[in-house]
Amino acid sequence: MTIRLLSIGKTQNDYLKKGIQLYVDRLQHYARIEYMELPDVSQNGLTPAQLKQREAELILKNLRSDHLLFLLDEFGKSYTSREFAAFFQKQMNAGTKALVLCIGGAYGFDATVHQRAVGKISMSQMTMPHELIRLFLVEQVYRAHTILKGEKYHHD
Amino acid sequence: MTIRLLSIGKTQNDYLKKGIQLYVDRLQHYARIEYMELPDVSQNGLTPAQLKQREAELILKNLRSDHLLFLLDEFGKSYTSREFAAFFQKQMNAGTKALVLCIGGAYGFDATVHQRAVGKISMSQMTMPHELIRLFLVEQVYRAHTILKGEKYHHD
Repeated sequence: MTIRLLSIGKTQNDYLKKGIQLYVDRLQHYARIEYMELPDVSQNGLTPAQLKQREAELILKNLRSDHLLFLLDEFGKSYTSREFAAFFQKQMNAGTKALVLCIGGAYGFDATVHQRAVGKISMSQMTMPHELIRLFLVEQVYRAHTILKGEKYHHD
Repeated sequence: MTIRLLSIGKTQNDYLKKGIQLYVDRLQHYARIEYMELPDVSQNGLTPAQLKQREAELILKNLRSDHLLFLLDEFGKSYTSREFAAFFQKQMNAGTKALVLCIGGAYGFDATVHQRAVGKISMSQMTMPHELIRLFLVEQVYRAHTILKGEKYHHD
């Protein structure tokens, strides 16, 4: 199973880039990871709704029909780290070939993206900067895979 | 009101140090912030229970009797970012002089620390590395204060 971590906008903060790269590198040993940052959509003169529309076009253009899309959304389903590991296991058992976890922009997702998605995952009820969620997400995907392998990284 | 962010062990990862410092610097303009990292307790030959005991001694030694202690704990109360802002407002309204938000070590807190605390706050149901929670926490404390000031940093 391929896991694509898809987000909108290049990570600007160097410290976050380093942290994200660190976990993406580690993850390569566990899974087929595609870490993708789509180009920024210029906010110039756009309303939040228009911005979300443009971002939606870009996101949908970067999905194949066999991509199973989950959105990172604070109103989604909450998981413990072990439940998140079980989520990946379940997808593998179901024969999912390509899983996409998508992080939206500063204003969230357009309705067209919500319609394309099969589920929503909440990392926290708190609103995080979308760049920071990337770091949080790659760490949790890494953690999930160490849990599936029975490694010692995770303590309950 | 003074807000002390207290954690155990020096942050090892440079990228996290940078991110934490960035938000601590910004926070200085909003609140009296004391960001404190207590020295690491050597894990050599200690069981997790013993390690938590040593950490507890260190934490308790760094609290004054007027410190109102809250623990960061994945089994604590969940807040949205707006509710977290309201939490700080409520403490200020109640005349709290010194608030402490404490992040434990890799195995969580000893019972003596739980007994000293007045509440538990969960940033996420997911288990994060305790160094990463520091970054997440300072960002949320910063976000809470921008919300209280009516600034534009936070979008719902």
